[in-house]
This record gives sequence, structure tokens and C-alpha cells, in this order.
Amino acid sequence: MAEAPHQQATDAGLGCDWIAVDWGTTHLRAWAMDAGAQALDQASSADGMAGLAQDGFEPALIALIAPWLSSDRCVPVIACGMVGSRQGWVEAAYRATPCTALADETTRPQVADPRIAVHIAPGISQNSPADVMRGEETQIAGFLALNPRFDGVICLPGTHSKWVQVSAGEIVSFQTFMTGEMFATLSRHTVLRHSVTEGWDDAAFDAALSDALSRPERLAARLFTLRADGLLHGQPGGVARAKLSGALIGAELAAAKPYWLGMNIALIGAPDLCATYARALNTQGATPVTLDSAPMTRAGLAAIRKQIEDMP
Amino acid sequence: MAEAPHQQATDAGLGCDWIAVDWGTTHLRAWAMDAGAQALDQASSADGMAGLAQDGFEPALIALIAPWLSSDRCVPVIACGMVGSRQGWVEAAYRATPCTALADETTRPQVADPRIAVHIAPGISQNSPADVMRGEETQIAGFLALNPRFDGVICLPGTHSKWVQVSAGEIVSFQTFMTGEMFATLSRHTVLRHSVTEGWDDAAFDAALSDALSRPERLAARLFTLRADGLLHGQPGGVARAKLSGALIGAELAAAKPYWLGMNIALIGAPDLCATYARALNTQGATPVTLDSAPMTRAGLAAIRKQIEDMP
Repeated sequence: MAEAPHQQATDAGLGCDWIAVDWGTTHLRAWAMDAGAQALDQASSADGMAGLAQDGFEPALIALIAPWLSSDRCVPVIACGMVGSRQGWVEAAYRATPCTALADETTRPQVADPRIAVHIAPGISQNSPADVMRGEETQIAGFLALNPRFDGVICLPGTHSKWVQVSAGEIVSFQTFMTGEMFATLSRHTVLRHSVTEGWDDAAFDAALSDALSRPERLAARLFTLRADGLLHGQPGGVARAKLSGALIGAELAAAKPYWLGMNIALIGAPDLCATYARALNTQGATPVTLDSAPMTRAGLAAIRKQIEDMP
Repeated sequence: MAEAPHQQATDAGLGCDWIAVDWGTTHLRAWAMDAGAQALDQASSADGMAGLAQDGFEPALIALIAPWLSSDRCVPVIACGMVGSRQGWVEAAYRATPCTALADETTRPQVADPRIAVHIAPGISQNSPADVMRGEETQIAGFLALNPRFDGVICLPGTHSKWVQVSAGEIVSFQTFMTGEMFATLSRHTVLRHSVTEGWDDAAFDAALSDALSRPERLAARLFTLRADGLLHGQPGGVARAKLSGALIGAELAAAKPYWLGMNIALIGAPDLCATYARALNTQGATPVTLDSAPMTRAGLAAIRKQIEDMP
């Protein structure tokens, strides 16, 4: 295959040592990394795991990272996330709790392209109550690489929010809440789609949060009230959106209280969502620290990369 | 318009006095009624309110009931449900609680066909907490026409389950739970679609119900456990379906406890769903009576029909 001049120039300019990949259900994100674990470039696409057949993973990856590749050498590609699930590229079997966040081995899919050597990090499972994660363990490994003495709880808000108890460098237990996916499906696929629109109202969020924390069982009734308040009292769609978020996050905090009460809390996730969770936890007297998820993912993948290098 | 021989024959055979119509969001059901409030024939179609523009209601109705009509007279058509909403045929303004279940007036859309005189029953609203119903009030009116001395709570399970406090012939208060719509959207539009399939398991329902009643705030965590139990322990899809139902109905019963605890309870709805709610209530020592919704709707519409006849 002839190299395009652009690729050669980019590669020469980058000096890319390895490639970090966060490959989830609906997204594919990659970073060209130097030997010191700094990102030199980034790229992303909508080629998430859910939209790919097994033979579609390598082409989707190459399409995204080709500008960073050089025909004269093979670079390691370290990936985490749903790419390692049974429906992914190759299944990377779960490690079971209690365990370190950092994987001690990876799974390697067969690849046709000689320029890459792909490693996929395993997820973590918990036998009882049954629970699983894929991708979050790498963010936690990155956080612990930077904060090796942390003892407490890590909350990773998102589509499937995770609360993870960490002690003595190990993941002791964790619990997943479908809060983000419930918010998305309720606001798009139910009668609430007529009542919940863009916009936000902090006071409405706070009130719904407080109500949900004190009466968490009333969720299904609270949801229909959002519709009826729109019909009868002209409640704005942004107020309804903030109330829906407050009702769902309030129920999550009520159920996750054994995790966070009196604990050190680190929030890892998208900055806007972390700010919402931090606001909610602040009302309960908890003061989490917040970290953006992307640098934690890169730090975790860099820790895996270092382990692979150190292997005999 | 020339009458088709079939229509004439049908009409002659039926002797239809009036027509009862239950017109919801996704369905249209009609019954040809005799003067004594017995159904002589029935018909239904998928021409629900949600799929019709304002000028589509009369043609959809005529298409369904034409065989019952005669060119030489005009029959009353009494309808209830979402047909009277703002997005329906004509808006039938809500009556506010506390009020009788039986409407004292109807709203009449303009119709082009001289063979029908259409009456639409109003819904009922509650100012605070904001809530609305359209259609259920007519089922309740039918139930109270048959049980005029009933005092207690009527539960109407469904897409939007209603718990209605009835005393001295009036609807005192009510509360809607989005339980049915949550079940549908969670099992179809989230990651649970991989784990929840057809099938059922009574013991799994009972266990999930009991768990939800004792820890109702844990809903979002319980949902993800359904997914993880499928992935890790091969939990069958029918077991997951029964657990999802138990988790949602358990949360509803926990929140609705002030309505049903120590009360007379009547369940009005689809027989299968009522049986599930009855089973759930039985575990809590409550012993509801169950009634099929269709005859209650007809009895309620018949009571409205009688009021219209009696008007000067």
C-alpha cells in the first residue's frame, strides 16, 4: 500500500509511540501517545461496538488512526471498553472482584495490518449482586496510578453510573445504576417527550432531588406529574428536564448512600454531568473531587502499556 | 349514499340504539348498543388518537361503525378517552377533583355525516399534585353505576396506572404511575432488550416484588442487575421479564400504600394485568376484587347516554 504524503508527514511530525483507544457501545476514541504517556493527537468516530460486525473492527480502527501509522514499524494499540465484550471484536474475559483495577493481562485479536499490535483490556465482574463493568476499570486504574494511596469510593456517572468501593489498591465491590439510560429513554420514548425539552433550572433540580431523596419510591408517580404539570400548569420543558434529572439522581443517591456516606468521593466522568452529581452530593454534605474521564482513561491505558513493556 | 345490502341487513338485525366508543392513544373500540345497555356487536381498529389529524377522526369512526348505521336516522355516539384531549378530535375540558366520576355534560364535535351525533366525555384533572385522566373516569362511572355504595380505592393498572380514592360517590383524589410505560420502554429501548424476553416465572416475580417493596429506592440498580445476571449467570429472559415487572409493580405499591392500606380495593383493567396486580396485593394481605375494563367502559358510557336522554 502506497503511503499518502500526508500520512508520512503526520507520522514524522508525531513520533507516535503507541495508541490509546476508548471503544464503547456508541463511540470510538483514539489518542496518538508519546513514550511519556502524553497525547500528541486525538481522533474519534461514531464506529461504536454496537454498529460493527466482528470483521468491521479492524477497518474501523484503521480508518481512524491511519494518519498516525507508518509502514516501517508496528505500534501497540491498547483498547478498553465494550470492544472486549462478547458482541465486540474479541471477548476479553472479566476479572472478578475483589481485584486490582489494573489488568495484568490483555486479550489480542488477530489483525491483518502489520502496522498495529492490538491489546484489549478485560472488564471486571462481581458475582453477587451480579454486576459488570467494561472501560470504567481502566479509568479507575488511571486514577489510582495518579493517586496510589486513595481509599474511598469512586463514582463514574454516565449511561450506566458506577459506584465503586476502593480500598488498599483494590476494587472491593461496585454497583451499577441505569440512571443515564433511564433519563434518555424516558425523555425520548415515553409520553414525557412532549413535556421534557432542552433547558435547565437549578432550583427545580434541587427541589426534585430533595423530594426523591426523602421519598425515593415515588419515581413512577413523579414522572407522570411532570407530564400533568405541563398540561395543567404550563410548566416549561427545561424545568421538567431538570426535575427528571433530579428525580433520577436523587433515587440513585438514596440507594447508593451506603457507598458514599462519610467516605472520600472521587467523581470521574464528563465534566457537565460530574458537576450535576457534585451539586447533588453537596446538598447532602458530601464534597467529592471531580476528574474528567478522558485523561483517566489515557492514564489507565498507559499503565497497561507499561505492564506490557515490562513483560518478559 | 346508497346503502349496501349488507349494511341494511346488519342494521335491521341489530336494531342498534346508540354506539359506545373507547378511543385511546393507540386504539379505537366501538360497540353497537341496544336501548338496555347491552352490546349487540363490537369492532375495533388501530386508528388511535395519536395517528390521526383533526380531520381524520370522523372518517376513522365511520369506517369502523358504518355497518351499524342507517340512512333514515341519527344515532348518538358516546365516546371517552384521549379523543377528547387537546391533540384529539375536539378538546373536552377537564373536570377538577373532587367531582363525580359521571360527567354532567359532553363536548360535541362538528360532524358531516347526518347519521351520527357525537358526544365526547371530559377527563378529570387534579390541581395538586398535578394529575390527569381521560377514559378511566368513565370506567369508574360504570363501576359506580353498578356499585353505587362503594367506598374505597379503585386501581386501574395499565400504561399509566391510576390509583383513585372514591368516597360518597365522588373521586376525592388520584395518583398516576407510569409503571406500564416504564416496563415497555425499559424492555424495548435500553440494554435490557438483550436480557428481557417473552416468558414468565411466578417465583421470580414474587421475589422481585418483595425486594422492591422493602427497598423501593434501588430501582435503577435492580434494572442493571437483570442485565448482569443474564451475562454472568445465564438468567433466562422470562425470569428477567418477571423480575422487571415485580420491581416496577413493587415500587408502585410501595409508593401507593397510603391509597390501598386497609382499604376496599377494586382493580379495573385487562384481566391478565389485573391478575398480576392482585397477586402482588395478596402478598401484602390486601384482597382486591377484579373487573374487566371493557364492560365498565360500556356501563359508564351508558350512564352518560342516559343523562343525555334525560336532558330537556
